[in-house]
Amino acid sequence: MEKEGEVKYMEIKNTISTYLIEQIYHYGVRHVFGVAGDYVLGFCNEIVHSKLALINTCDEQGAGYAADAYARLNGMGVVCITYCVGGLKVVNPVAQAYAEKSPVVVISGAPGIKERIKNPLLHHKVRDFDTQRRIFEEITVASTLLDDPKTAPYEIDRVLTTAQRYKRPVYIELPRDRVTTQINDHASTCKVQEESDPKILQEAITEAVIMINAAQKPVIIAGVELHRFGLQEELLKLAEKTNIPVASLLLSKSVISELHPRYLGLYEGAIGHDYVREYVESCDCLILLGAPLTDVDLGLFTARLDQGKMIYVTSEKTSIRYHNYENIRLHDFVHGLMESDIRIRKPEDIPRRDIQTFIPEPEQKVTAKRLFQCLNSFLTDDMIVIADVGDALLGGSDLIIHRRTEFLSPSYYLSLGFAVPASIGAQLANPSMRPLVLVGDGAFQMTGMELSTLARYGLNPIIVVLNNRGYGIERPMMDGPFNDLQLWQYSRIPEIISSGRGFIVKTEDQLDEALISAYEYREGFSLLDVHLDKHDMSPVMQRLTSRSAKKVTAEK
Amino acid sequence: MEKEGEVKYMEIKNTISTYLIEQIYHYGVRHVFGVAGDYVLGFCNEIVHSKLALINTCDEQGAGYAADAYARLNGMGVVCITYCVGGLKVVNPVAQAYAEKSPVVVISGAPGIKERIKNPLLHHKVRDFDTQRRIFEEITVASTLLDDPKTAPYEIDRVLTTAQRYKRPVYIELPRDRVTTQINDHASTCKVQEESDPKILQEAITEAVIMINAAQKPVIIAGVELHRFGLQEELLKLAEKTNIPVASLLLSKSVISELHPRYLGLYEGAIGHDYVREYVESCDCLILLGAPLTDVDLGLFTARLDQGKMIYVTSEKTSIRYHNYENIRLHDFVHGLMESDIRIRKPEDIPRRDIQTFIPEPEQKVTAKRLFQCLNSFLTDDMIVIADVGDALLGGSDLIIHRRTEFLSPSYYLSLGFAVPASIGAQLANPSMRPLVLVGDGAFQMTGMELSTLARYGLNPIIVVLNNRGYGIERPMMDGPFNDLQLWQYSRIPEIISSGRGFIVKTEDQLDEALISAYEYREGFSLLDVHLDKHDMSPVMQRLTSRSAKKVTAEK
Repeated sequence: MEKEGEVKYMEIKNTISTYLIEQIYHYGVRHVFGVAGDYVLGFCNEIVHSKLALINTCDEQGAGYAADAYARLNGMGVVCITYCVGGLKVVNPVAQAYAEKSPVVVISGAPGIKERIKNPLLHHKVRDFDTQRRIFEEITVASTLLDDPKTAPYEIDRVLTTAQRYKRPVYIELPRDRVTTQINDHASTCKVQEESDPKILQEAITEAVIMINAAQKPVIIAGVELHRFGLQEELLKLAEKTNIPVASLLLSKSVISELHPRYLGLYEGAIGHDYVREYVESCDCLILLGAPLTDVDLGLFTARLDQGKMIYVTSEKTSIRYHNYENIRLHDFVHGLMESDIRIRKPEDIPRRDIQTFIPEPEQKVTAKRLFQCLNSFLTDDMIVIADVGDALLGGSDLIIHRRTEFLSPSYYLSLGFAVPASIGAQLANPSMRPLVLVGDGAFQMTGMELSTLARYGLNPIIVVLNNRGYGIERPMMDGPFNDLQLWQYSRIPEIISSGRGFIVKTEDQLDEALISAYEYREGFSLLDVHLDKHDMSPVMQRLTSRSAKKVTAEK
Repeated sequence: MEKEGEVKYMEIKNTISTYLIEQIYHYGVRHVFGVAGDYVLGFCNEIVHSKLALINTCDEQGAGYAADAYARLNGMGVVCITYCVGGLKVVNPVAQAYAEKSPVVVISGAPGIKERIKNPLLHHKVRDFDTQRRIFEEITVASTLLDDPKTAPYEIDRVLTTAQRYKRPVYIELPRDRVTTQINDHASTCKVQEESDPKILQEAITEAVIMINAAQKPVIIAGVELHRFGLQEELLKLAEKTNIPVASLLLSKSVISELHPRYLGLYEGAIGHDYVREYVESCDCLILLGAPLTDVDLGLFTARLDQGKMIYVTSEKTSIRYHNYENIRLHDFVHGLMESDIRIRKPEDIPRRDIQTFIPEPEQKVTAKRLFQCLNSFLTDDMIVIADVGDALLGGSDLIIHRRTEFLSPSYYLSLGFAVPASIGAQLANPSMRPLVLVGDGAFQMTGMELSTLARYGLNPIIVVLNNRGYGIERPMMDGPFNDLQLWQYSRIPEIISSGRGFIVKTEDQLDEALISAYEYREGFSLLDVHLDKHDMSPVMQRLTSRSAKKVTAEK
């Protein structure tokens, strides 16, 4: 992957599409996710004859989620689809990537520029030829139409650099009559990244260091941007140098190994563990690094974080207590802290949870609580947990993650259906990791058919379906038939796609056996259909729903 | 359904949501399609306690397609989803409804107005609170945020009237803290529809009648808007009064019974049957009513329709030969033609195709050509054909449809995955009709899980999967691994969802037997997995692909 800020001189290939492919390859992309269609067939053909692999999902939505997961792990992900009928199916996954800062590049085929003359009613057109682009402008940080071979290389550089700078999606529209258009053979220069203003940065760091050193009990709250901007190593050094404890948020879970001696736990206001809440809320200096505060992270506004004790630095904003600093880049601030004279403290014994060995009770019905206990002892170093929305995420948030960046979930945007297709992108981004997918039955019914894609490309995630016959997370808020689902025989899906293994799990010993079998079976995916009581829920979800039930219909 | 242009006085109910429900009921809506989510739970609860039924699909995409099909048959359809994570999943189905003039009402739950103060990072938010609304403004003809109880009744009337006027989608955003907000008890008036300018209308009709009466060989080309604007009865009367033959286009297929003696066939340029092409292109007066000319309708621009012989009237534009008339409504023009002195001609013997009885050849492998011949003789009066994109549509276009409005397909926008979820909406809109769903394996893998929704609501379409192991329509344009699919055992899906019946069909006798069994089994859906050769195609598709192959990569 290209380092930020570096000036790049690249060899220009001779067509728009070969240049585009070369550039995304340069950013570390090796797999492109998508579905073909007539306006994008020519470019698909270019991809399959390039160094990139084209991964075809069942539906474009799946490709969008796969590209998002790939981007989170790899630094950039690409989804390639046809005009409108493909592009407009990935609006939601791309919106998610925007909300949660994942640099997804959307490449959309489109009608040829010559075909657009006189505005004919070409198939796939909605209102006018720019409709799709205008929609994507709402959910991306840069967009371009590659209509002119003279500007195409610059435009490609511009949007990819912007994706890298802001860690957010961008949109590239490639008309089908421009795919093989020749471009001039000249060197192109990516823009140099803007840097922090040195005087402002110095003042902010000085003030922060004084505040930290004066504190009796400081804590670092490490946010998702540390992951996105590649600052996890710096975070680790900072914690190890100063011995200041580190908490994470739901969206940044696993930004640091959860077995690290300085790791405190997940801070989620009243929804999280009391020992983390009590520790964090009793601190006299809160160092929030790369942590935009979402309602979920704030435990639906049950968090009590005093701004008067806060050093708050994200990629978009820097403030200390009640005043702001402009023109500071997150990277420079974190690096500056590392280099400064922060007092080294005596390592403190911080409260922690242990991973308890799970001993199955034979014939005991599985409960959500016990399921997560079991998964906690099942997790190994080479697994990545991918949690869909619902109790899969909430219960999953309690798992103790061994390494970094090994917990993936759309825990702010909260779009159902992410996990199964995300496992495609995650395992291709890092084949040495085995995804453990946690997904509710509601989310599974949305995108579960992407198991077919796992089968097609020989991937082997372990998929745990939390089958409680409905949208369990909504029942405590307001129940009705709209929370019910048709019951599926999930464990028999391998028979439909002639691949993978399925297990029915109703008791603890079945759970234990199925996990062992799934772990040993490495030739394809395994799916565990875990039957849970309709109203069962994990301890985290119990705390959450008791807070959120009253919000659903609150008039005032 | 409310007649257009009528002034309505309605009793206002006492909350925003009861008023909204009352109004959509008034437009003939009885079923709302959607998926629940926390921001829309309160409104879902209002629906299930109202006269409307809430139909829950597996994924929001399915709800969008179901609402579109419902709207096409019923005059209005409603999809109800949560904020962003639901709404942005229906962008593509709603774009399709826009492109093909289907009045779909999108009702999206949203964060409460009070929650939006200070712009917090509430879950499901993308960029700002208006992002979703701005996106929908690109693909709807009206939108509103129901934030104020004083204006809400007027706003609801305004957007629903607009949907009815333009037969296109509209967007209604209902914040969760406004669901049960009281509104004042006063009478509301819908806007009176604008009418044609009488002098302009008179001149246009006079000119058209002179032109028609002077012609030796006129023809009516009946477009999709005649269906959308409820003018099929008028079309029938016009044809029967004047004996002028009627052709339809792909998008308007079945706008008139295909067994009607005045019905000529489907005009598709070089892609359609030669006898229709020759007839239409040799006419000296082309009366195009409600027929916007798309690239598909024009046989990918192989059509030869001389504008100098054309009377062209749609909901948006009126022109005769090379000049235009403003301010004419389609309804008034068609009605005006009916009332005027058009010469009555001697009924002509027009060429026609007969429905041949299909006699299966035992053990003969099924081909696409024979499949459609078989389906042609299988069709009954109480069936509605719903064709997905691909050879399902092209081959299906050759079926002879017995009654009107009994062929549904996104044949301009051409979005894959429509047919299975559309059958939910179609059968609920008209329970006396049995959907015959034609769907390729590629489209089926996108939305086929909505069979689960058919099962849940006891619907019984007959689903024919054209299983040729890939995107067959793309192979002749440009082939590669991106056109391949994982092979599924489609016929075994009933085992997964514990409902319906599956059949494997490889030979003609198996096809015949499976159709008979499916017809007799009325308790649930039937699915025929029809194995076709990878490169097999219907005669229509053969003609199409020979025209379009060269367009995919055309540089100039």
